[in-house]
Parts: sequence; structure tokens; C-alpha cells
Amino acid sequence: MAAVNHPPAVVLLTDFGTDDTYVGQMKGVILTIAPETRIIDLTHAVTPQDVTEGAFLLERALPYLPPESIVIAVIDPGVGTRRRAIAVEAGGRRFLAPDNGLLTPILLKNGPVQCVEVTNRRYIAPERSRTFHGRDIFSPAAAHLATGIALNTLGAAIEPADCMKLPMPGCTALGIGVWEGGVIFSDRFGNLVTSIDSSLAAEKDQWRLVLPDGTALPVRETYGNVPEGEPLAYRGSFGTLEVGVRDASALERFGLNRGEKVRLERL
Amino acid sequence: MAAVNHPPAVVLLTDFGTDDTYVGQMKGVILTIAPETRIIDLTHAVTPQDVTEGAFLLERALPYLPPESIVIAVIDPGVGTRRRAIAVEAGGRRFLAPDNGLLTPILLKNGPVQCVEVTNRRYIAPERSRTFHGRDIFSPAAAHLATGIALNTLGAAIEPADCMKLPMPGCTALGIGVWEGGVIFSDRFGNLVTSIDSSLAAEKDQWRLVLPDGTALPVRETYGNVPEGEPLAYRGSFGTLEVGVRDASALERFGLNRGEKVRLERL
Amino acid sequence: MAAVNHPPAVVLLTDFGTDDTYVGQMKGVILTIAPETRIIDLTHAVTPQDVTEGAFLLERALPYLPPESIVIAVIDPGVGTRRRAIAVEAGGRRFLAPDNGLLTPILLKNGPVQCVEVTNRRYIAPERSRTFHGRDIFSPAAAHLATGIALNTLGAAIEPADCMKLPMPGCTALGIGVWEGGVIFSDRFGNLVTSIDSSLAAEKDQWRLVLPDGTALPVRETYGNVPEGEPLAYRGSFGTLEVGVRDASALERFGLNRGEKVRLERL
Repeated sequence: MAAVNHPPAVVLLTDFGTDDTYVGQMKGVILTIAPETRIIDLTHAVTPQDVTEGAFLLERALPYLPPESIVIAVIDPGVGTRRRAIAVEAGGRRFLAPDNGLLTPILLKNGPVQCVEVTNRRYIAPERSRTFHGRDIFSPAAAHLATGIALNTLGAAIEPADCMKLPMPGCTALGIGVWEGGVIFSDRFGNLVTSIDSSLAAEKDQWRLVLPDGTALPVRETYGNVPEGEPLAYRGSFGTLEVGVRDASALERFGLNRGEKVRLERL
Repeated sequence: MAAVNHPPAVVLLTDFGTDDTYVGQMKGVILTIAPETRIIDLTHAVTPQDVTEGAFLLERALPYLPPESIVIAVIDPGVGTRRRAIAVEAGGRRFLAPDNGLLTPILLKNGPVQCVEVTNRRYIAPERSRTFHGRDIFSPAAAHLATGIALNTLGAAIEPADCMKLPMPGCTALGIGVWEGGVIFSDRFGNLVTSIDSSLAAEKDQWRLVLPDGTALPVRETYGNVPEGEPLAYRGSFGTLEVGVRDASALERFGLNRGEKVRLERL
Repeated sequence: MAAVNHPPAVVLLTDFGTDDTYVGQMKGVILTIAPETRIIDLTHAVTPQDVTEGAFLLERALPYLPPESIVIAVIDPGVGTRRRAIAVEAGGRRFLAPDNGLLTPILLKNGPVQCVEVTNRRYIAPERSRTFHGRDIFSPAAAHLATGIALNTLGAAIEPADCMKLPMPGCTALGIGVWEGGVIFSDRFGNLVTSIDSSLAAEKDQWRLVLPDGTALPVRETYGNVPEGEPLAYRGSFGTLEVGVRDASALERFGLNRGEKVRLERL
């Protein structure tokens, strides 16, 4: 059933929302060129124009995307300016995005990568809007990749080192057994996703997470390890620590803002 | 065109929302294992952790899902605790869900069912998060079913009778020609969906629906049977009675809360 | 890879939202009948019951939809009344919709069209709800078209001239070099989409757009042409002029309401 010659899936990550028809227009363009494509909406709800959040979400979802998929990522505050459109091949997948740092983790962490500027008019829309490159450049280029063209037919090679990088949310050692990171966003359940890699707190029950107001939370495996209504930090599904409250919302309880600092301390 | 050997569709019902990348990650896992799969988003907007609402919505949508589809249902307040992951075959379809009552109508109303606990490590993610079984257990198991494995390869058989059941929203006879039910939710148009089966009020113009404040609404076929701005009860598309207002919102007019009682009375 | 015999894509445009299971039920019906279908969600967030907005969004997205796609458009305040269900073939695509003006641009601008009333019980649900023709009439009819039946098997031919038309948002000449149009909606970024065709302001830097409060905005190619925080009008991705603010929200700045008049004036 898993056909040998199925076309690669196309994955979309944007800040377009799904209320407008923007994403639907992109899908129309993709399926016009490559009608057999499966399309995965990774998310269209990245905070508008927040390139860093988009880069984090993409990196963290990467292990779960089909190994040969083609990712279109569009958070593009600079659309219509001179920023380049780039296509990158890394780790078996291909990525299309504005050259604004959105692909930072792809460019830095996936070993040797191939990178081109997308300029070949044969593979992008003949009449391009100045405000919607997601539809007019990235979607047709991705769809043509899905039909089998080579990455380097999209345009001239550029050095990955010359592509824009952004500082990514992460964590820094403040001392022996003390790490500082930040809150990136909250999910639908009010869990606060931080930038502190879970593996730093691998030893069980040896760590606590300290919030800006001084509240110290136990680091546990899961909600079930604390009583109902109690807060905790746990190893979340993004591979980073999250702040949660059993059967309640950490967002409501702590009201943390994006970017606020949290500290992981060994007990 | 309707190919004989197309793979079964996979249907998703969750409370994850679509703002986060959770659903996108699930789709990535499914299409990695079973690349030809069609995925149907039934809804991701079940009220967070409301297992009963999820069970109702699934039951009521069942007649419209492809006959051999595989349903992943994840409303899972107990994720990370000892609750089991189950796979159920009933009425030609297969269902994956936590054993928390979400499949109550499937287990009770679809005749003989086959039921297993999902434990086979060959068909679930090797590294499983404690908080996201939708991605790490249910999605890979469903995708492997889609590729053709048998249900009983997912784990040991369990008795359907031993699976958790929840009391489902319904209605009870209060006397001759008097039924009581409740409001389950409101839809985007402000219609209030009740738990009273439409078939109870089959005879035309013989019934009224009484709201908690005493307002008595005529039961009619459709909006067109009352003047603009007038309220009514009608046989809704979920197979239950709904409260609506022609060209307006019943939710705004009556402000009913979920669970509030309504009474169907013969005239 | 672009298979010769792939089935046509089905495109959905509704005001159902995606919180309820309505759209999921439609997809279930479509994939039951035509399991190989690709489905494109153009949008489900049309303002509830706003037929004109739906017609505008459909018309403007048309160039980006696959050339042989089948469009289901359901904004249907008259569901359950005597309004007809129609199927229209125009410009290579087929459209299913209530006969309430939603297809106005399709009927008027796509040259010779074929039009039938959808009545053939063989291709619609045997038990039809009075409130959800999207699921019970339009989806099965579209899916049967996708499997290869001819349009005229759905029902008797009707004259396109006899189908309902609505006045569409547009713009009118108020004098030499002065046009008046209206605001149709705002997108997720707070850009205000107007009904004034961009081509009217084709000559660079020769025009201004005047808001109801007298504010005059320069018409420019793109955000990059004005300083940060400055407002402008630009040629948007719908093919009409839009009002935007560089790195900010025009909706917040100007608070325009839908339908408010704007004036395009030659300098």
C-alpha cells in the first residue's frame, strides 16, 4: 500500500491563518502543478511576522515530517523588499522560505546543505504579486520540486553561510547546574513551552524550574506525578521543558509573557 | 476513478486546536508510514478535555465517514497516567483512542466489536513522550493499520466490556409525551444542539420544546417555517433537535449554557 | 509524477467554520464516494451568511484553483426554503452552490456556461436534512462528478440567465480619474481589502486613495516603499487595492468597517 513511487508530501508553515483564502490559494497552485501531492498543514498560526517562533516550531516538528517532504515556510515581514527567496536541501528534505532567518536551524544543524536562490521564471508565477510570494514563488517552486525537478534548476547556488541566520531561542549556562532559557509560547491547553532542552534535566527528580516571580516548580515526568491543581515542569512533546498545571492552565495561573526568563536549577 | 485498492481514510477528532503544530505532527507521522493516506479533520476544536462532547460528536458524524475508515480520537486528560491505549474494530471501521470513555457509543451501539490494547512496540514510536500519545502511539498505530496490518497485531485482545464507558448525553421520559434532554453545544451560527433525538418528534407540528426559562418553541421542519427573527426547534443535522432563530443567533437570544435542561412536550 | 488520470480536486468554500464537525462530515461524504479526491479548503471563515463576500472571495481565488477542479460553495441562509441547488460548468471548472447569487461572477464572467438544477436522487443523499445541504446534496453531487458522471445527469438544464445574481462589490467612476469602491474585509494582518481593481491605478505614483475621514494614502507597489509605521495603498494579492500600514495593522489604525467607501483619485 505504501507505494514506492508516491510523490513527496508538501508541508506548510505560515503566519497566514486559515480565515483568509491565502492558504487555499497556495494549495490550489500546488495541486495545479503536482496534482498527486499530499499537503500537511503544520500550522498557519505562527504569531504574525514572528520569524523566530516559526523557526523554532519548524525545527521541533522536523523529526515527525516525512523524510523526503518539501517544506514551504512563509513568515515574511520583508515580502516585497529585496530579501531573497531561497531553496535549501538538508537531511533529505527540501525547504522553501524567504532568506530572513526562518531556516536558521535547518542551515545550522543538518550537516552539509545545498542552497539556491529561487529565481528561475520557468518555475514561479509569470505575474508575481509584491505581497504574496507564498502563492506566487514558494508554492509553484515547491510543486515543481514535487514533480521531480532538481533543486539547482530553481536558481543559482548560494553559500549557506551567506544566508541570514537569527539567534534562536535556547538556553545558557549561568553556572554549575544552572541554566537560563525563555518562554516561547503557550499551547491550547495553557501549557508554557520553554526553550530549555529536556535532556538537560534527564536525571529524575534532581531539578527544579524557577519562574521570574521566584516560584520553584518540581521537574516531573508527567501531570500524573503531581496532585490535581498543582503546577510542575515536565519534559514536553517539543523536546523542551514545559510549565503545566494538572487539570488546569499554567497560562492562567502564572500569566507568563513570551520571552520571559526561566531558570533550571539542580537541587 | 474510485480505485478498488485505495488505502482507507484516516479521520482525526481531537481537542488540540489547529494553532499549535500538534495536529501537523500527527499528520507527518501518518504520512511517513502510510504516504498514500487521505486524512479527514473531523474537528480539532472539541472543548479541551471534554471526553463526553468528543464521544457525542464522533457518534453523530459516524454515518458520514467512509465505511472502512480509521478514526483517531484523542481527548486525553489522563495522558501520562496508567489509562490504556485501545484499538477497536466495529461496524467495519477501526478506532484508536485512550480508554477513557471516548469510544462509549462505538463500544455500545455497533454490534460485535473487536478490541485490543495498543502495546506492540513495533507499531508505536520507540521514544514516546509522556504527554503526546496522539503523535507517538495513536498516529503510528493507525498508519500501520492503514498499510494493512491486522488489528490484533497491535496488542493483546481485551474485553469490550472491560473498556471504560461514560454516561452519554441523551434524553429521558418524564411522563407520557414528555422528554427531557440537555444542550450539548452551540455551532458557529449560534444554533443550540440538544441531545434529544429528532425521531421523538417525528409527527409534524405536534410538539414544542420548552427552555429552562419557560419559553416554549414550536418544533418545525426548518427555519423557513417561521418568520424572520422568530425562534424555533427543528430537526438538526446531527439527528437531534436544535434551537435556532431564523436569520439570527439562538445563542445570543437565549444564552443557554452547556448541559442546561430542555423539555420536549407533545401539544 | 503529475499523473494523467488523476481525479479532479474538490475545492470547498463555506461559512461553516472548522470548529464544528460540519466540514469534516462533508469530507467524509466526498471520500466515501470518490476516495482518491484531493480536497482544498479555500476558506470556511466567510462571514456567516454573507453571500456577497463568498462570491468575491471565490472569484478572486479562481485563477489559482486547478483548471478542472470542482468547487463546492455553501453560504446558504435560505437552506430549507425553496431556493434551488445548482451545478454550473464554466471555464473548465464545475461549481455546486445554492442558487442565491453566490456564483454571480462565475455565471457572468466565464463565457458560455452550462447550468443544471441538482435534483437527481441517485446522486444526493437519500435522507436529506433540511438544514445541511452542504453534506446531503452538494458533497455527494460533487463527488459523483469527480468520479466521472456528466453535469447534466445531476438534473434538468436551466438557463444561466434564470439563476440568481447579486450586485458584486466593485467600483464606479465618479468623474475623470476618480473612482469609488468599498472595503470588503480585513485579513489576518489587518490589511483592508477594497473592491477597487488594482489595474485602475497601474501608472506608478500617479494615484492616491482617500479614506472616509479624508486621509489620503499614497498608492505604492509594496510596504517597502514607505517608512515603517506609515500607511499606504498597494496592489494586493486579490488583484484589488488594499490599505496597509508597514509593520502594523491598518485595521487598528483606521478602524474601517466593511462596506465603507474609499475613493481612488488621480494626482
